[in-house]
Amino acid sequence: MKILIVGAGVIGAAVARALSDRHEVLSASRSGELAVDLTDPASIEALLARTGPLDALVSAAGAMHVGPVQTTTPADFRRGLDSKLMGQVNLALIGQHHLNDGGSITLTSGILADEPIRHGANIRSINLAVEGFVLGAAVDLPRGQRINVVSPGVVTESWDVVQGLVPGFSTVDVDRVARAYVRSIEGGASGQVFKVW
Amino acid sequence: MKILIVGAGVIGAAVARALSDRHEVLSASRSGELAVDLTDPASIEALLARTGPLDALVSAAGAMHVGPVQTTTPADFRRGLDSKLMGQVNLALIGQHHLNDGGSITLTSGILADEPIRHGANIRSINLAVEGFVLGAAVDLPRGQRINVVSPGVVTESWDVVQGLVPGFSTVDVDRVARAYVRSIEGGASGQVFKVW
Repeated sequence: MKILIVGAGVIGAAVARALSDRHEVLSASRSGELAVDLTDPASIEALLARTGPLDALVSAAGAMHVGPVQTTTPADFRRGLDSKLMGQVNLALIGQHHLNDGGSITLTSGILADEPIRHGANIRSINLAVEGFVLGAAVDLPRGQRINVVSPGVVTESWDVVQGLVPGFSTVDVDRVARAYVRSIEGGASGQVFKVW
Repeated sequence: MKILIVGAGVIGAAVARALSDRHEVLSASRSGELAVDLTDPASIEALLARTGPLDALVSAAGAMHVGPVQTTTPADFRRGLDSKLMGQVNLALIGQHHLNDGGSITLTSGILADEPIRHGANIRSINLAVEGFVLGAAVDLPRGQRINVVSPGVVTESWDVVQGLVPGFSTVDVDRVARAYVRSIEGGASGQVFKVW
């Protein structure tokens, strides 16, 4: 299959490793050879014009606002929506038209869709919104196209960076998270939230 | 208590009826004496300057995009986010600073957060995002402030308008939906999704 992965973080890189021995894998991110800004539909269109038709589209990209709700402003909240929610939604809405029959879209939410933490209102809202989009879109997609979402737990390889936000959480190795993306792409399921934690 | 209800639809009107015999109830909507545009933070600030401090803030307002995902554009999707998601989030983020100690905020999601329908990707995403915001914000709110969300089923009084979108759904009378808002305001719970269907 020809697969585009957007997001060059710990998870995007692991998904590329898990797929590249038997698929043609293209990797895009904010910089580099295949640069894209997911908040800009024109930038997504330009990327997909370069890649040509795809069998699978993966997003592991997007930032969110972290902070106490007392000091969160509407502008703070919207920045998170624009990045991890609208970025992924933009990619899926535009990408569906560049996807072959039977192709799949796999987006990324996260354990903080389900688990309460301090300072996590924007994160929880966005992750549930991504899951809601996927669950809703799966009903409509034509031509055998499928859409799923992977909800990673706290990734072991990111623990040093995020431990202050998620005290007491267990972690999951990124290679285990990457296998859920493989299931989404190579399995037949649609409208699934693959929770890996 | 002094209670502000934003939204003059079938549900907002029923909530006002359920509360007005024993509370001071103010009703705001897009037009009328207390007019507000929830997509505009300045408009919300102006409304709350007029009402003064509140004991409870209720939102039953917001529109969403209905349509097949194949023809949904990023701009379509964003219009729904701006209205029912950011409108309610704006009201809560700004309103918390005009809420007395122990005061409550009650937002509105809907059964389509949980149930699949055709053409419902924007609706499902937004309703889950509203619930995620409430679940996240409840962890942080200070001064005994509480926040909940009511998820109404398909309201009997709206069936004629919505039946094409939700074939086969059962309905729930709006007065039963209104009682969930009363529970949120007069009960002690926080971080709850009251599902009424």
